[in-house]
Amino acid sequence: MTKIGFIGTGVMGAAIAGHLLTAGNELYVYNRTKSKTDELVANGAIYCNTPKDVAEQSEIIFSMVGYPKDVHEIYFGENGALKAEVSGKIFVDMTTSEPALAVEIYEAAKKLGAESLDAPVSGGDIGAKNATLTVMVGGDEATYNQVLPYFEIAGKTIMLQGGAGAGQHTKMANQIGIAGTMTAMSELMVYADKAGLDMDKVLTTLGGGGASTWSLSNYAPRILQEDFTPGFFVKHFIKDLGIALAEAEKMGIELPATAEAKRLYDKLADKGFENDGTQALIKLWWKDGKRPE
Amino acid sequence: MTKIGFIGTGVMGAAIAGHLLTAGNELYVYNRTKSKTDELVANGAIYCNTPKDVAEQSEIIFSMVGYPKDVHEIYFGENGALKAEVSGKIFVDMTTSEPALAVEIYEAAKKLGAESLDAPVSGGDIGAKNATLTVMVGGDEATYNQVLPYFEIAGKTIMLQGGAGAGQHTKMANQIGIAGTMTAMSELMVYADKAGLDMDKVLTTLGGGGASTWSLSNYAPRILQEDFTPGFFVKHFIKDLGIALAEAEKMGIELPATAEAKRLYDKLADKGFENDGTQALIKLWWKDGKRPE
Repeated sequence: MTKIGFIGTGVMGAAIAGHLLTAGNELYVYNRTKSKTDELVANGAIYCNTPKDVAEQSEIIFSMVGYPKDVHEIYFGENGALKAEVSGKIFVDMTTSEPALAVEIYEAAKKLGAESLDAPVSGGDIGAKNATLTVMVGGDEATYNQVLPYFEIAGKTIMLQGGAGAGQHTKMANQIGIAGTMTAMSELMVYADKAGLDMDKVLTTLGGGGASTWSLSNYAPRILQEDFTPGFFVKHFIKDLGIALAEAEKMGIELPATAEAKRLYDKLADKGFENDGTQALIKLWWKDGKRPE
Repeated sequence: MTKIGFIGTGVMGAAIAGHLLTAGNELYVYNRTKSKTDELVANGAIYCNTPKDVAEQSEIIFSMVGYPKDVHEIYFGENGALKAEVSGKIFVDMTTSEPALAVEIYEAAKKLGAESLDAPVSGGDIGAKNATLTVMVGGDEATYNQVLPYFEIAGKTIMLQGGAGAGQHTKMANQIGIAGTMTAMSELMVYADKAGLDMDKVLTTLGGGGASTWSLSNYAPRILQEDFTPGFFVKHFIKDLGIALAEAEKMGIELPATAEAKRLYDKLADKGFENDGTQALIKLWWKDGKRPE
């Protein structure tokens, strides 16, 4: 039984924390909106008032919050985790965030005698619930090996990608890859509809060949049902693509197709669809959010 | 034993014609460069001097040439197939070409008492050789049913998508879908390289998740080997995307991500890589066509 901390118990975080608790660990939790910890507390978790308190109580501290500014706050803020006595502890940030911030946490932790990993995930809320997440890890190998048994409780595909920040960079590569599949899916469906094709036939035909993508298999059927429930929020995808493009710019490379995808998603958010799932991109072509007759 | 005609015996056409011949049909062939029919003739096909001659001799006439202008020439030119006595015959154009031209051939054939289908394919030279092509068909159902046994000799996934032109429109949707996967793959690989990630780990991690695409599974390993042998030529992809974008414009829809992909492929061709395979897109970011150290 390990003393595990979990900062940020939104949909994803709560599911992962729940697995860690069920596996028999002692769980210390914090969330900005306290009510989101209620279910975990009812199941035996201990609520802490601040990220600092979580870090005081725990040996390994996971975090999963919204934006890089939130990550910064929970680590470096007045009541941040790194304000605790942290020598010998391990921090694991699972938020999709900036590679440079991951390095900053890593270095700050080292100075305090602690360790850290960046470990963003993919697989969405379903992956979190079913413990089938892909976990992309950056940091030291020894630290990775210590945390691996806990990653294995929540994930299926787990890999150390390199040093601090490499987990975040890998996640950025993943999001760049997804961006192209989302624009492609939207545009091919808009084209097929406009050309008067039978969409079921088109999707059956394309799904087995060179145009096949995870997105087309999983999102196209939902789009045909006009189901825009978020598996992954538009607003979070925009955050991710913003980080990816900023990193690319820092590295001196242009990613024109990813930039175009970001521009389209920004436009979608401007139209008020930022809380839809990413499959809502097709609404840019639809009138009043409805598929053309 | 049916009298089958085949106009255009390039890599793809020759493979398909070969299957039809092996299946026991009488085969009449024409190609602009006569030598490309030599192997088929050695195996029992009969060479004809013009598309018109092929049509005179055959009951079902397939064609697979390069560009819409070539399609126009072999059907409507001075020695074109429709200049023959064609009553009761069936024409099947497998070239990826313009939907409007497919309709034009369909209507011209009807006036002459003949039938026609548009039937572009996907699956590349390997699909043609292994008879595993996807065949996207447009035209009348009765005609489709007559030709289906012959499609089944060359293909695996065969579907009537709708009336004349629907096969071409479906192929355009397919190419729109592929375009997004090619830009996404290139950009994520460029990003991962620049970020100093281990590409094998990145591809293993991403290949099982939301960013997975046929292109990433099939082309990324070739890119790492700097293998740009064409499965599908850059110049032909540019042709296809040009048709798709022109059709979209005619239908009054914008496809910004596809337009961006076309712009990138045009740039690649301008740099002299038009005879590479489509996976060469990444060369836009590489110096002298070499992966960065």
